[in-house]
Amino acid sequence: MTVHEMLESHPRPIALDRDLLLHCIDECADCGSACTSCADADLGEPDVLEMVRCVRLCLDCADACGATGRILIRQTEPDLGVLRAATEACAVACRACAHECEKHAAHHEHCRLCAEVCRRCEQACRDLAATIR
Amino acid sequence: MTVHEMLESHPRPIALDRDLLLHCIDECADCGSACTSCADADLGEPDVLEMVRCVRLCLDCADACGATGRILIRQTEPDLGVLRAATEACAVACRACAHECEKHAAHHEHCRLCAEVCRRCEQACRDLAATIR
Amino acid sequence: MTVHEMLESHPRPIALDRDLLLHCIDECADCGSACTSCADADLGEPDVLEMVRCVRLCLDCADACGATGRILIRQTEPDLGVLRAATEACAVACRACAHECEKHAAHHEHCRLCAEVCRRCEQACRDLAATIR
Amino acid sequence: MTVHEMLESHPRPIALDRDLLLHCIDECADCGSACTSCADADLGEPDVLEMVRCVRLCLDCADACGATGRILIRQTEPDLGVLRAATEACAVACRACAHECEKHAAHHEHCRLCAEVCRRCEQACRDLAATIR
Repeated sequence: MTVHEMLESHPRPIALDRDLLLHCIDECADCGSACTSCADADLGEPDVLEMVRCVRLCLDCADACGATGRILIRQTEPDLGVLRAATEACAVACRACAHECEKHAAHHEHCRLCAEVCRRCEQACRDLAATIR
Repeated sequence: MTVHEMLESHPRPIALDRDLLLHCIDECADCGSACTSCADADLGEPDVLEMVRCVRLCLDCADACGATGRILIRQTEPDLGVLRAATEACAVACRACAHECEKHAAHHEHCRLCAEVCRRCEQACRDLAATIR
Repeated sequence: MTVHEMLESHPRPIALDRDLLLHCIDECADCGSACTSCADADLGEPDVLEMVRCVRLCLDCADACGATGRILIRQTEPDLGVLRAATEACAVACRACAHECEKHAAHHEHCRLCAEVCRRCEQACRDLAATIR
Repeated sequence: MTVHEMLESHPRPIALDRDLLLHCIDECADCGSACTSCADADLGEPDVLEMVRCVRLCLDCADACGATGRILIRQTEPDLGVLRAATEACAVACRACAHECEKHAAHHEHCRLCAEVCRRCEQACRDLAATIR
């Protein structure tokens, strides 16, 4: 991702652990796209009635990942409380979405993949949030 | 807002207190637009160098309000933990943005107005979050 | 909406017709919320299988209205070509969504309401785009 | 990106050229993140007064890329007119942002990088839009 290179040339210092931050930015981007795709794939399934909760939680998770990803990309004049709250809220959305997607993982490959990236993003958010005091 | 009327015809019951929910949806919409506008107005000011922190916190707050507003509008198959975490994170972003905008309220009317709507949205989020167990 | 008052105190001149611009900003906000709500209400209906196209087009329209609304709120250093293209693309998304929602208006009140606001937003976008040279 | 794998397991056929579509989804994601980062890096520069137009156009481009990326990820029940209009509007936003970033590329590495990804995303959008009849 170009954003890694761009942060190398950012005029302000990075307030958080650089590796955890870059990893979390990547996971938010990947998870947001995956959740947008999973909600849409659910809609296209013949058993869409059973997938309604999955669509809902994927949409919520995509919104949380999108907002948190943009907040984390910004390095100028951060407020640590905002970073921590956004990252923790994102972890909660990822966990709820992963939990639902896992129920459908055996019969929908897109749910299996989405659950995996949600679990990775949840962990990345928790690891980063734990460093923000 | 049309969304009030639409929620009247929603096929699923509303899981949260209806008045607090509708008020919070409205405040998230109003605050998100105001923060987008305040960040942009700051950029247009001759003293933009002093407004850099205000731009940053307005952009973060706009992202938080946008995501939280969409999550709250959805009534189908909600996860209460996701609703609470998003609403609490939004309150934190609103408070940080209000605090910064208040410093500029005396010389920038857009900051005074933005601080007011951020305080209202912060309160609406806290009031709603307090009802989510 | 607070954003109307805020634009009164914006340091830069407004490049477009003020009334058409404010109206379009309002319609984009209203339509974006309505489409988020209609997609979610569709998901909660027992006949969700017949509503799949409506969900899809509501999600697209909500994305278009959200992006266009934020682009129109900004007054500092606008690029007229960007404003025109975003506004025209939003009108296309509104029209497609209205066309689909109208098919379901007789049996789903949320679709009837959503179709109305999509038609208003489509018109507001076209009226504004027509003034941008 | 996980979304590539997910589209392999999508229940509906892909309406557009698969390679051009996947490339455009990737470029929209990369460009949206890069523009969010460039706007923020501009804000952190000592010469922020000269960067105001760059911030503005980066914010617009990030909004356009975010909305277009989500619209392109969806494969269920697409409306080709919506896909074409969104992709074309995104190309316009990318071109305007690239043009401005290029003016600062010699003294701000983040602008040089952002201009490059904007040009790539502009081309990917134009190539994809050209296939949508």
